[in-house]
Amino acid sequence: MAEVQFFGVGGSPFARRVQIALKLKGIQYTYIEEDLRNKSEQLLKYNPVHKKVPVLVHNGKPLAESLVILEYIDETWNNYPILPQQPYERALARFWSRFIDDKILPAISRAAWTANQEEREKGIQESVEALQFLEKELKHKFFGGETIGLVDIAGAFLAFWLPVIEESTGFSLLTSEKFPKLYKWSQDFINHPVVKENLPPRDKLLGFFKGRYAASINASK
Amino acid sequence: MAEVQFFGVGGSPFARRVQIALKLKGIQYTYIEEDLRNKSEQLLKYNPVHKKVPVLVHNGKPLAESLVILEYIDETWNNYPILPQQPYERALARFWSRFIDDKILPAISRAAWTANQEEREKGIQESVEALQFLEKELKHKFFGGETIGLVDIAGAFLAFWLPVIEESTGFSLLTSEKFPKLYKWSQDFINHPVVKENLPPRDKLLGFFKGRYAASINASK
Repeated sequence: MAEVQFFGVGGSPFARRVQIALKLKGIQYTYIEEDLRNKSEQLLKYNPVHKKVPVLVHNGKPLAESLVILEYIDETWNNYPILPQQPYERALARFWSRFIDDKILPAISRAAWTANQEEREKGIQESVEALQFLEKELKHKFFGGETIGLVDIAGAFLAFWLPVIEESTGFSLLTSEKFPKLYKWSQDFINHPVVKENLPPRDKLLGFFKGRYAASINASK
Repeated sequence: MAEVQFFGVGGSPFARRVQIALKLKGIQYTYIEEDLRNKSEQLLKYNPVHKKVPVLVHNGKPLAESLVILEYIDETWNNYPILPQQPYERALARFWSRFIDDKILPAISRAAWTANQEEREKGIQESVEALQFLEKELKHKFFGGETIGLVDIAGAFLAFWLPVIEESTGFSLLTSEKFPKLYKWSQDFINHPVVKENLPPRDKLLGFFKGRYAASINASK
């Protein structure tokens, strides 16, 4: 029998990507919660390169990096396809999920955790420009069409974590006025029954981000 | 008839990745050389997000990002497979090619183009640590086995560009003493008949990197 272990951290949007994919496909797995201040020997053995969650171990074989894991899950368990079937659409899904990781998340990070006001404004401007590309790309209910796909799962951060960060740090980015399609998508995504059940508690996340924001402000004094 | 256009820059390791894949598979294409100081309207239209080469246009449909393009090429033209067939090996190929882009190339960039000696040493140290992971991962003639695969193509920079940068900037990194397997791989790779014919002229690259190094030194004075 296939054995699946999944190492994560409750609040991590990258770990939750893997969890959502496993749940969408109905894959049985054992979950191991990591403590990032005291990483387990198993985590360090399975992901010596990045020493980070998520890690998926399938029949003893470990994999790291959430987008790599998502594609592996999709190629291994064929029900509820996450990637499109056609090569060009598959390539676009890879392109936009990488765009989220390589451009949008770093820009939002600069906007949220930089105490310097000028740098922060620059981060917000970069985030707006990057999100505009994504807004333009959204042509159906989900990026995956009528069902959740790779780009939706990669974008979980935008739908759930970003609003909590906005509330913690006092800027507003993904609003229904500025990004009507993305905003509606974010609501549809977090209210999808499988997604909804597999998000971290909002109040805990809010406390965490408020603390992080206070620390970033204090560090600049 | 399928029409393939490929926008590149002669000296770009990212564009050469695409060229090597097209040649390995024997795909006919039209090449358009871009001038990065004066980008064509076509390039900006086809890659509005990153405004960079390489861009592949297949039957009018554009794609950017070299690793995304390589996977698209592999899924569209099945001869000479670039990715392994098994999901786990495919995932590892994706992991290591991303590792090259996300960890090794930035570390080498810090080592090569930072005038501050301390920062430079740090970049070299990071590069060594990252290359050690890759050295350990190399188990056959090529990362792809007996034939060239995704990780080999992604690593073209290490085999051809890095030695030229070493010569331009006066550090040594990928030596046969420190990395015996990677060094042998680099020789096998650049001497592969298809690769050999599709690399830029070494002397031109050397002049370019010497100029870049001089500029980075001058900028710090």
